[in-house]
Amino acid sequence: MSVEDTPDASEITFVNRFTVHAEPEEFERVFADTAAFMTRQPGFVQHTLVRHAVKPDSYVNIARWRSEADLQLAVRQPEFQAHAAVLRTVSTSEPNVYRPVQERVSGGDGPGGR
Amino acid sequence: MSVEDTPDASEITFVNRFTVHAEPEEFERVFADTAAFMTRQPGFVQHTLVRHAVKPDSYVNIARWRSEADLQLAVRQPEFQAHAAVLRTVSTSEPNVYRPVQERVSGGDGPGGR
Repeated sequence: MSVEDTPDASEITFVNRFTVHAEPEEFERVFADTAAFMTRQPGFVQHTLVRHAVKPDSYVNIARWRSEADLQLAVRQPEFQAHAAVLRTVSTSEPNVYRPVQERVSGGDGPGGR
Repeated sequence: MSVEDTPDASEITFVNRFTVHAEPEEFERVFADTAAFMTRQPGFVQHTLVRHAVKPDSYVNIARWRSEADLQLAVRQPEFQAHAAVLRTVSTSEPNVYRPVQERVSGGDGPGGR
């Protein structure tokens, strides 16, 4: 096990919970267009879109950015605003910004680790 | 940019939202004990505990597991149940299991890439 406290003081995690009121396939297509734009913005690190195991209309996007300033710059782009408007036609969202405080990866310093 | 759809069909993302009603430092200490146990369980991949940027009592733990079966096996361990009982003395939680559907990392195939 490796432990890293406060992995990067300025890095943020953007967590956006979506409730979809269109066909899930359409939401995923519209989201993919938005995400493709976001990945090209300075400071984007990584994102994962996940879907609830038993509630098919519930998704969460988890995105890491180098800093909150980078994220805010990205969402102020007119192209992002256009993507966001399309997303709002298929879903509602609950966005929140978080800061990492603890992080661990599997690594094997204990009997059950690999 | 690299895009990977359905990164791993069996991998799951466990998202647990905590509302803390004790000192944040105590919650983080108790959580660290629980997380140290979880990292030693088979199938644990990685986790990040994040804290809300403006609501100091709000945390989210985002944990990747090889499969839902691995997660369920871990949470059935008596030692986990003991950790969970302590966590409940300092927080309430809202756990949900998700499956990854889209994932992208910064990679720079466009003009705005890193």
